[in-house]
Amino acid sequence: QIKTARLLSFISKMAKIGAKSNGGCNRQALTEEDRLGRELFLTWCHAIGGVARLDSMGNLFVRFEGTDSTKLPVLMGSHLDTQPSGGNFDGVYGVLAALEVMYTLHDQKKKLVHPVEIVVWSNEEGSRFTPAMSGSGVFAGKLKQSDIYKSLDDQGVSYHDALISSGQNGTELCQAFPFFASLELHIEQGPILEAEQKSIGIVTGVQGMNWYQITLSGETTHAGPTPMSMRKDPVQALMAILPNIYDKVAEYGEQARVTIGKLTTIPSSTNTVPEHVIFSLDLRHPVQKTLDNMSKEVLELCNQVPSIFNSDVELLWESPAIEFDLRCIDVIHMATELLNMNAMPIVSGAGHDSVYLSTLGPTGMIFVPCKDGISHNEKEHVEPEHLVSGANVLLHSLILLTEE
Amino acid sequence: QIKTARLLSFISKMAKIGAKSNGGCNRQALTEEDRLGRELFLTWCHAIGGVARLDSMGNLFVRFEGTDSTKLPVLMGSHLDTQPSGGNFDGVYGVLAALEVMYTLHDQKKKLVHPVEIVVWSNEEGSRFTPAMSGSGVFAGKLKQSDIYKSLDDQGVSYHDALISSGQNGTELCQAFPFFASLELHIEQGPILEAEQKSIGIVTGVQGMNWYQITLSGETTHAGPTPMSMRKDPVQALMAILPNIYDKVAEYGEQARVTIGKLTTIPSSTNTVPEHVIFSLDLRHPVQKTLDNMSKEVLELCNQVPSIFNSDVELLWESPAIEFDLRCIDVIHMATELLNMNAMPIVSGAGHDSVYLSTLGPTGMIFVPCKDGISHNEKEHVEPEHLVSGANVLLHSLILLTEE
Ligand SMILES: NC(=O)NCCC(=O)O
Ligand SMILES: NC(=O)NCCC(=O)O
Repeated sequence: QIKTARLLSFISKMAKIGAKSNGGCNRQALTEEDRLGRELFLTWCHAIGGVARLDSMGNLFVRFEGTDSTKLPVLMGSHLDTQPSGGNFDGVYGVLAALEVMYTLHDQKKKLVHPVEIVVWSNEEGSRFTPAMSGSGVFAGKLKQSDIYKSLDDQGVSYHDALISSGQNGTELCQAFPFFASLELHIEQGPILEAEQKSIGIVTGVQGMNWYQITLSGETTHAGPTPMSMRKDPVQALMAILPNIYDKVAEYGEQARVTIGKLTTIPSSTNTVPEHVIFSLDLRHPVQKTLDNMSKEVLELCNQVPSIFNSDVELLWESPAIEFDLRCIDVIHMATELLNMNAMPIVSGAGHDSVYLSTLGPTGMIFVPCKDGISHNEKEHVEPEHLVSGANVLLHSLILLTEE
Repeated sequence: QIKTARLLSFISKMAKIGAKSNGGCNRQALTEEDRLGRELFLTWCHAIGGVARLDSMGNLFVRFEGTDSTKLPVLMGSHLDTQPSGGNFDGVYGVLAALEVMYTLHDQKKKLVHPVEIVVWSNEEGSRFTPAMSGSGVFAGKLKQSDIYKSLDDQGVSYHDALISSGQNGTELCQAFPFFASLELHIEQGPILEAEQKSIGIVTGVQGMNWYQITLSGETTHAGPTPMSMRKDPVQALMAILPNIYDKVAEYGEQARVTIGKLTTIPSSTNTVPEHVIFSLDLRHPVQKTLDNMSKEVLELCNQVPSIFNSDVELLWESPAIEFDLRCIDVIHMATELLNMNAMPIVSGAGHDSVYLSTLGPTGMIFVPCKDGISHNEKEHVEPEHLVSGANVLLHSLILLTEE
């Protein structure tokens, strides 16, 4: 059994780095806060003999040897970066629970046969640099490092420059190596486990997600003298297509999702009709074929603007729906039975680094419920008992996986 | 008669400071470009004996003595700051034509009885710092310097800090002094003169304008796992009210204007349902009472969001409809007759520093047409013959005004 007080103390100490006044956290990828968070994490790792490596994407691997160093390592990873208005658990919990698992094994002087590597994946959130899960994506060979390096944040800083200025540009080339299995513990970030009164979700797969950037263009002109009839105001183009987008996604039923997270005008000036309205479109569905159809239909609608406007669609990212390894699912299930936990299978609505890892080797995920299903919000909250349950399931899944 | 080549050369040299690749200009208030533009202007002023003063808002006064220094000065002013995607004439033309007028008088060794002060008003555009016309507004006592000092640009820099860093914090306190009259030459920034094939507009007044900031609030949450039915997505609140806003303003007829120039989400993250959608609202009408009614009705609509959302309305600025001095209108009219110009009376759709000056003393404005009525756009264009006509009308209005 893991130590509750220690796990909670890891979490609350980490939450202080980038803490917001309302209890949330702003520790975005490749910032000074991100660097400080990792530094703190490393002091904890060093205390029980972890040995760190950093790769060229900023992914951080901390290795704990088992009894047989020729065996493939088990990866236990998640991320320490947060959304700009993030909480204290998304990603962080997975990393710090993995740390607590290693502390527990260390307390008990229990050595596994396999080495374990705790991984802190870089830029999982995708809020500062598009796309999400870019550290694990490059690791898995699904994203190109040279593309990600060029990705710019809203201030025009590139991933590569931020990597260097935050001291996270590791010497090791970011590339996949063989692993025995990969386990990730995460908060659900949705309302299902809470509604079903379960303390553990055994994640069977992750829904597909597509990201686009839509640019609606009109003509910039003066807000005062220009008659309404002579304007090409792209806000009116936005107004025309918004209901169509939401209605179309609703046609695809309860499992379909659409989010417009970024929305801006260019130029951005009170007394100027903008030239462009630019917005992000995040479309999701657990069934890949349905997501494909839905995306196609929604993009057609984005192109159906009145003829005085121009519409431009750019694909930013595609993360196909995936299913996790049956053996991992089974092991997690066995751990919940062993611990007598109230568990259920669940499909993840959020993307995770495990999506990319699942393309490389046996991968599994464990969820715990979060309050009101709210995440990517400073109010994000998880009950301590669930935090403890999740960490224990992680511990026993690791043991079961490596013992047989 | 003024010298065409010299006027055009002033304009094209000034356009190089902050020049954009597509021919437009980005020389926003209190930037390094703004400072460089004023420096260039001052070298031209010094060459013919102009003496400069700078006040605590960054308004720049350049005095040219007449034959009687006890007489009140005539002000001829406009602004050198531009929109982020601005052209080469808005404001700039009025300042440089006034300069050309003084050069012409200098060439002819003609001294007026009254002193003349060319004024470069600070932050006229209102795009970097809200509101517009803030230099002249504080000068006229209609805006408070301490409020404007606190105004922040989109990067969080205050007016006061920008004033200092751009070296425009003058030692003289910004406050009104008596003047004999004030004349401003400007491009129309609308389509009327062109449509009516007139080369001069005799401006009889300026329409009223109200600026608001509307904040629609929902609840930030994760774009993936959160079911659509559980969301409080403020983009949907925006979608609900946008058509109502445009429809309502259309009910007020052809002279009514509404512009949403700034539009943004907070937080701004692709995979996060935003907490807030914030937008600016610029409402205008030439009849003050109509503008008042229209604003009231539009703001009510902004408050009529579905009950899961919150709506907050903040008044940013009110600039009431004004009428210019009849004597100034008459003098400008006489100048156009003297020069045999094709002129018509016109109401300005744009705000100008003359709005605030008209509350202090006799004030008049002259317009010239601009191509397709387009302004606040890098494509802004004015035919050289119109630039010359306007400057000549300014010259002769000045002479007529001071000679009688
Ligand atoms: N866990 C998490 O918030 N990941 C970000 C990727 C996504 O948008 O789902
Ligand atoms: N001339 C001009 O563009 N002034 C800005 C003030 C306004 O918004 O009308």
